[in-house]
Amino acid sequence: MSELRQNLATKEWVIIATERAQRPADFDDPRRPHTHARPSRVETCPFCPGNEHMSAPAVLEVLQDGRWQVRIVPNKYPALADHGGVERRLDGTARWMSGFGVHEILIESPEHNTTAALQEDPQVARALRALRQRQQQLERDPRLMMTLCFKNHGSAAGTSLEHPHCQMISVPVVPHHIRQRLADALAYHDERGTCVYCDMWRQELDAGLRVVAEGELFVAFLPYAALSPFHIWILPRRHAPIFTQISEPETEDLARVLRQVLARLYYGLHDPDFNFVIRSAPTHEEHSRSFHWYLSIVPKVTKIAGFELGSGMFINTALPEESARFLREVKLAG
Amino acid sequence: MSELRQNLATKEWVIIATERAQRPADFDDPRRPHTHARPSRVETCPFCPGNEHMSAPAVLEVLQDGRWQVRIVPNKYPALADHGGVERRLDGTARWMSGFGVHEILIESPEHNTTAALQEDPQVARALRALRQRQQQLERDPRLMMTLCFKNHGSAAGTSLEHPHCQMISVPVVPHHIRQRLADALAYHDERGTCVYCDMWRQELDAGLRVVAEGELFVAFLPYAALSPFHIWILPRRHAPIFTQISEPETEDLARVLRQVLARLYYGLHDPDFNFVIRSAPTHEEHSRSFHWYLSIVPKVTKIAGFELGSGMFINTALPEESARFLREVKLAG
Repeated sequence: MSELRQNLATKEWVIIATERAQRPADFDDPRRPHTHARPSRVETCPFCPGNEHMSAPAVLEVLQDGRWQVRIVPNKYPALADHGGVERRLDGTARWMSGFGVHEILIESPEHNTTAALQEDPQVARALRALRQRQQQLERDPRLMMTLCFKNHGSAAGTSLEHPHCQMISVPVVPHHIRQRLADALAYHDERGTCVYCDMWRQELDAGLRVVAEGELFVAFLPYAALSPFHIWILPRRHAPIFTQISEPETEDLARVLRQVLARLYYGLHDPDFNFVIRSAPTHEEHSRSFHWYLSIVPKVTKIAGFELGSGMFINTALPEESARFLREVKLAG
Repeated sequence: MSELRQNLATKEWVIIATERAQRPADFDDPRRPHTHARPSRVETCPFCPGNEHMSAPAVLEVLQDGRWQVRIVPNKYPALADHGGVERRLDGTARWMSGFGVHEILIESPEHNTTAALQEDPQVARALRALRQRQQQLERDPRLMMTLCFKNHGSAAGTSLEHPHCQMISVPVVPHHIRQRLADALAYHDERGTCVYCDMWRQELDAGLRVVAEGELFVAFLPYAALSPFHIWILPRRHAPIFTQISEPETEDLARVLRQVLARLYYGLHDPDFNFVIRSAPTHEEHSRSFHWYLSIVPKVTKIAGFELGSGMFINTALPEESARFLREVKLAG
């Protein structure tokens, strides 16, 4: 059974989940073939069609012609457990909470050897729609403060399974890091009366220098202060603090922009390992005028070392303007 | 020439240092031999005796019988340049600063195939003393706000050279992350009238459960909310906000405790890759009653993935109490 602990000096929350140490891994060989060179179905993969019995029953399935296209299942080795209450204790400097939460997997496709970069836009849109729908259900549980949605692609990005999937973890606290982001955005709004993220995408579009892809409703660019080469933000043009506030036309536009950006990374950098995270406000901040949800992509082309750990500052060895130009010039297949 | 940029939404500073992309690396082979199995001198290593001409002249040298034991040299591929002024500009949401700063290397030993875990305590003390002395010199430069001192041991920890060394980067800003730590410690002090770090080491010593090593003047333990297996803090018992306030007896005690902790990791986990960082307040906070300097060690036994990136929360698959017991029971050589 998991537990949550907070370091009272740093205010960081940590999930202690000892069962997760037993997870199996596909990735013992670091020189594995690129995504497209793998088989389309793997007998032992718990996410391949025909192996549905290897997971707990799905909490959401998108069907077409009687076959699932996208499904959400409970994580077999969850970081948090979806039963029990929310208990809290403070003993000296030791803050403890019961490990209540929800940890689920979105299986993005029945195909083992694909990834968003190689899919059709409507399939990416199906996955985004499923994430939205499931997160909207979880928002109704008053014990959960927010949902963190992320993808780990490849061994260096920390995934243990090849089959294309995202993860969702709904937590009973607001992580300190998110609180800081909210406070910083609020301070900017107090000072200038505008949302810093709205100001940012408009300026990036005006400047054009760091733009990677442009949709009708979304903009993808390297931030002016990109933390690493190819660190990319995708922002909705419409101000909204929480991912689940995405509209249907926005879902379709995001699918197009996201797929295009991931394809530029896939072909330009030869299927790099990467993480993406959806940065979203806690459920109760649904009316925030200062925080703006977005998707952040971090290809694993550099390592986080002592300087970054110690200072929270990063050293980027590439000019964001040059990385953006490189990605804009990548030839996409087809 | 480097530059500093701040993301106005996240308040994170990044150093853009394109020249650093040209660094050479010893570590192309991930299956390199353990530290002690390497040769004691390497012809091409810029840090081995006889190759001093491969670096810029030393800024500090500790000599014995006419040979250096420890030396500090400018980094050949510095993240920041030690000439020019401190300029700042703000253009919309783009905050820019000139890349002024100091980036130096502490060479911990003339021996190529050693590491603090394998050294004698007095040699570790020499290295700590050199760090203190050089940082005290840098504190006199009013353009520099603070010095970040860290070590990357092994390829996964982000080092590009095998020869045992630490790095020091003195920066002209206070990183946002450090500001938050200071603010959180101050809030605790306002609330309770004590330093949270002082409270913490006392409680850890009382509980005993997570203690790894105990010196007369320093305590090493896994924090109650350790972010990963074997994440270790070493705190001075005496309250002091900045590393350079360390006394001579404290330097000797820290050398003993640090060497013992690193030896427990070396023998217990077979020379794992790790980072350590010295967490210290900015120079102008020398009288802070709420912040307390310490050394944090993070062995690279897990990966930072999307969840950690997105939430700043961590998932630790080991109980800190059990990791501490494991380390206490490691048999040390000799």
